[in-house]
Amino acid sequence: MLSPLLDNLARAFGALPGIGRKTAQRLAIHLVSQKPEVARELSDALREAVDQVGHCEQCRNLTEEPLCQLCRDVKRDDSTLCVVESPMDVVAIEASGGYRGRYFVLFGRLSPIDAVGPEQLHLDSLEQLVTDLPVEEVILATNLTVEGEATAHFISEMVKRQGIRVSRI
Amino acid sequence: MLSPLLDNLARAFGALPGIGRKTAQRLAIHLVSQKPEVARELSDALREAVDQVGHCEQCRNLTEEPLCQLCRDVKRDDSTLCVVESPMDVVAIEASGGYRGRYFVLFGRLSPIDAVGPEQLHLDSLEQLVTDLPVEEVILATNLTVEGEATAHFISEMVKRQGIRVSRI
Repeated sequence: MLSPLLDNLARAFGALPGIGRKTAQRLAIHLVSQKPEVARELSDALREAVDQVGHCEQCRNLTEEPLCQLCRDVKRDDSTLCVVESPMDVVAIEASGGYRGRYFVLFGRLSPIDAVGPEQLHLDSLEQLVTDLPVEEVILATNLTVEGEATAHFISEMVKRQGIRVSRI
Repeated sequence: MLSPLLDNLARAFGALPGIGRKTAQRLAIHLVSQKPEVARELSDALREAVDQVGHCEQCRNLTEEPLCQLCRDVKRDDSTLCVVESPMDVVAIEASGGYRGRYFVLFGRLSPIDAVGPEQLHLDSLEQLVTDLPVEEVILATNLTVEGEATAHFISEMVKRQGIRVSRI
């Protein structure tokens, strides 16, 4: 019994992970009736981000520039490279404040059942980056799941062939 | 450590009720990197809804038409009018399937501390509607909170003065 446009909005919210049907309906009603300016800002922010954000040419993190902020920062330490599964891992590690090296973001983990292999994780770019930067140590910070461990093992073998030290957290 | 446009999107998500900072960041990353088409649909749905949806001239529910679907439905029973706090209440009552009368949506409840009085709930429109339709019974379905009860009491007195039967659920 929502109007067609409200129902459409509720369905769009319901397509987001973790947002159920009722919550989606409440969000749609709340924004349209109470917070139109919040709705407009979200609409514009979505459009801008999805139109302009792509992958960093070096670390593959998300950025609207050719190189992300961290890869543009000349003060970072080129000798260590931390490999993570997701941009959220970069956020967490940066928030902890102790790491000053470079990153590579996989956007996933090896998972043959989901057809995610080395190609989907752009491991060729990682291999190239380890060669291009004067990397001395690769830190494998993939998740401690079966797939995360398998991914770390695969990358470890790849990097060791290049004669570079590998550590795991 | 999100890019400016991603950070902007995460802040926009974080302005929604019930969505914390981390969830907002995860949503922004997920949509931009995995589901751009879902992001575009949500952006368009927000824009369309906020630009076109307003209040039904009769029941004040949300609709992009002058009259909402229920008020346009000539098969509904004009002799009963159910007063609810929110469009979600209409959704719930319609889903239960037992009610065939009309509605009036308050979009709130009387709350002097929040400066919500009879005017903010458009109780003059409700009074007029009860006169315009051949209403024989008003059903007060406001929430069973202190404010919901006070609102029901206030409307009850108003409607009884017009000589119309009142019931409470």
